[in-house]
Amino acid sequence: MSKSPAAALEHARKSRDEILAELREFLSIPSVSGNPKGHADIKRATEWLCDRLRKLGMERVEALPTGGHPVVYGENLSAGDSAPTVLLYGHYDVQSAAPLGDWHSDPYTPVVRGDHLYARGSSDNKGQIMACVGAVQAAMKAGPLPVNVKWIVEGEEELGSPNFAGFLEQYRDRLDGSFVLNPDAGMLGPETPTIYYGLRGMYICKLRVFGPARDLHSGAYGGVVHNPIHALSHMIAGLHDDDGRVTLDGFYERVRELTAEERAEMAKLPRDEASYLEQSGVSKLWGEPGFTPVEREGARPAVDVVHILAGSPKSAIPAEANAIVTARLVPDQDPDEIQDGLMKHFEQHISSTVSWEVEDCEGFPASLTDRNSPAVQALSKAMVEVWGKEPLFCRSGGSIAAVGQLQQILGLDSVLTGFALPDSQMHGPNEKLHLPTWERGIEALVHFLYYLAE
Amino acid sequence: MSKSPAAALEHARKSRDEILAELREFLSIPSVSGNPKGHADIKRATEWLCDRLRKLGMERVEALPTGGHPVVYGENLSAGDSAPTVLLYGHYDVQSAAPLGDWHSDPYTPVVRGDHLYARGSSDNKGQIMACVGAVQAAMKAGPLPVNVKWIVEGEEELGSPNFAGFLEQYRDRLDGSFVLNPDAGMLGPETPTIYYGLRGMYICKLRVFGPARDLHSGAYGGVVHNPIHALSHMIAGLHDDDGRVTLDGFYERVRELTAEERAEMAKLPRDEASYLEQSGVSKLWGEPGFTPVEREGARPAVDVVHILAGSPKSAIPAEANAIVTARLVPDQDPDEIQDGLMKHFEQHISSTVSWEVEDCEGFPASLTDRNSPAVQALSKAMVEVWGKEPLFCRSGGSIAAVGQLQQILGLDSVLTGFALPDSQMHGPNEKLHLPTWERGIEALVHFLYYLAE
Repeated sequence: MSKSPAAALEHARKSRDEILAELREFLSIPSVSGNPKGHADIKRATEWLCDRLRKLGMERVEALPTGGHPVVYGENLSAGDSAPTVLLYGHYDVQSAAPLGDWHSDPYTPVVRGDHLYARGSSDNKGQIMACVGAVQAAMKAGPLPVNVKWIVEGEEELGSPNFAGFLEQYRDRLDGSFVLNPDAGMLGPETPTIYYGLRGMYICKLRVFGPARDLHSGAYGGVVHNPIHALSHMIAGLHDDDGRVTLDGFYERVRELTAEERAEMAKLPRDEASYLEQSGVSKLWGEPGFTPVEREGARPAVDVVHILAGSPKSAIPAEANAIVTARLVPDQDPDEIQDGLMKHFEQHISSTVSWEVEDCEGFPASLTDRNSPAVQALSKAMVEVWGKEPLFCRSGGSIAAVGQLQQILGLDSVLTGFALPDSQMHGPNEKLHLPTWERGIEALVHFLYYLAE
Repeated sequence: MSKSPAAALEHARKSRDEILAELREFLSIPSVSGNPKGHADIKRATEWLCDRLRKLGMERVEALPTGGHPVVYGENLSAGDSAPTVLLYGHYDVQSAAPLGDWHSDPYTPVVRGDHLYARGSSDNKGQIMACVGAVQAAMKAGPLPVNVKWIVEGEEELGSPNFAGFLEQYRDRLDGSFVLNPDAGMLGPETPTIYYGLRGMYICKLRVFGPARDLHSGAYGGVVHNPIHALSHMIAGLHDDDGRVTLDGFYERVRELTAEERAEMAKLPRDEASYLEQSGVSKLWGEPGFTPVEREGARPAVDVVHILAGSPKSAIPAEANAIVTARLVPDQDPDEIQDGLMKHFEQHISSTVSWEVEDCEGFPASLTDRNSPAVQALSKAMVEVWGKEPLFCRSGGSIAAVGQLQQILGLDSVLTGFALPDSQMHGPNEKLHLPTWERGIEALVHFLYYLAE
């Protein structure tokens, strides 16, 4: 029984084209979790994935029902009780591809151009799931699997995982393990393997401001009735001061301050102001004074209105103006307290001439994981094998609800990595997967499985 | 040759059903001028109207081309040089009916429920055109037409009449006359015949604020890059102070102040705060301090953002945020100066972290007409005949570009009235025409034609 990855790496290289072909099949299913009419596609995606996990030699494979879209489960515990058990997290759902006109090719007809595979979900997250499939398959072909694996691939990550906590509670008995591998976090560049140890939390709500009972002709009522667009703009404009600091009462109160040591480490990351400028295309950055961009992204909270909509090109004072207000949270902010602060702000900034309400409020806290755990160390060593250099340790500004839920409900830390790049256009048009990086990712995962068993 | 309206009134009553049936035909053509794919419907509407004017006994009937949709013209000058010549203004175009879901019946399948005819355009403006047709037809059946008439029915009123001034310049030779009857202004209530002597002017532009080069994941960039929604909100929020006064530099500088006499007259109008509250459905009015609602509507300028749109429910910082900014102007404000003030405001309220531009800027000044002209006096007497009371003299808060253009280019005042009511839902869903008022309107127009000839 070999505990060396050499044979497995050989198998991984040989099956590269097979795995890529399968990924293209998987990507052709438009499993958009936010599409209310997409149930058939969600079902096709779960069936496709269940079939693939069975072919891989997984047992107890099934699409476990939840309050929403099912979670695909499968396990192989042949490594035995003495070996670690890795929960392999992923999500088979994707973001909507709208607006379609911005795509150079159909988002659900995967196409390779140059070094990239273009399709919705190629980087986020189907490509990462298939990297895990490729690595586990290679190890199983080379000999007994060195660790136990349990797949938990959910279908509502892009909705904020509203039913994932309930799933973890319900199936808690079969979900014991050592830690979670979560390849949904990406890496900073093709030559900079990355392990994330922090994620921001999230708060989101829809703010509705109500003016007149119906849209009113702006000639007859302009200057007579308060326009809810103006009232809403005032509420939004007041969320930040002129320097970019969030003005909500107590917003920064519980924020865990960075240590001098962590700030020094973050300063060494290849994420300087110039890189943020280049990747965003703005001429000047913006945000809370006193912190570098990389600190602001990973370790400082933010408030962003991501959607605003009211009125029409018709000259009318609209009956209603709406916005989706979000916050990215850091340890130790509490989503409930952030909500309280927001509600107080809205109350203080509203005019008595309009009314308001919020709906669809959701939130989950930020998470930090142990950088010195055996699993993180194993992944770090695996990355050194493939890239010839130590990985970067980063906090991500993004939010993955599942990570906090796995920590709270199962007591499991997540090892956060992935092989998507900053320019992969996750959630945007022309999402792509950098294939050379993806192939190195599969090899790193093979090494990882063997290092875990050492 | 009868100069008494008795026979004509009899004809008007007899042909009521015929005119109503024709109006329903006219309303079934969705002549939405703002629909870029609607050229066939515009053409059908002009052909329908040309046919109707020919049937009415008009001469030189044709759809005169302009830079945009044509103007339907027709004339009958049989009353001779000694009689006044009325230019009958109207517009055959309508506003979009979107959102269709808010309609109780199809907007282009006219239906009578109770006292109302429901359809897009029923009040604004096809019902008014057909009231004029009904009155002129009745007079012609009763004997020779007592005045000369020239129809000018345009197809771009709902777009702000961008090509109407050009049309007036081009066809100036055939458009001489005594004054214009414009029945696009409506009346304050079914028992309050109304003549308008003032209209507000209009300024409109589209404001675009640009942030990152493309939509950015709000996790990766929240707190790092300035969100154009926030920048736009700040620009909009600053347009008014907390009391509802417009903050633009010099905005009120040229506003012609109301005389004590006119304020006293306006105070007598049946347009108190309670009526504005009831018709708008708000719990509290809003606007420039120191003026009553009726003064604010008719004689004070206003700024309203009528449309705002940015981002999507996806958690992204959008590349762009847009708003349509409008102003309603009063004498003697100059649209160019208002634009200058707005641009200066945007420049001062923009952050250096985003950029902006405006496009589709249009404007025209307010207009006031002579309340003591023979035409206004004739209409006033006609209304007394039908309603048994003097009409109200009002300033309208609305804007009709054509009125100023007719004054500037042809030197013709417009007599502004109409038989739409404040609850007619012009521009909104379930637009309706109050048929009893419309029928009285036709009779008033018959009297008007005869009083003009006295």
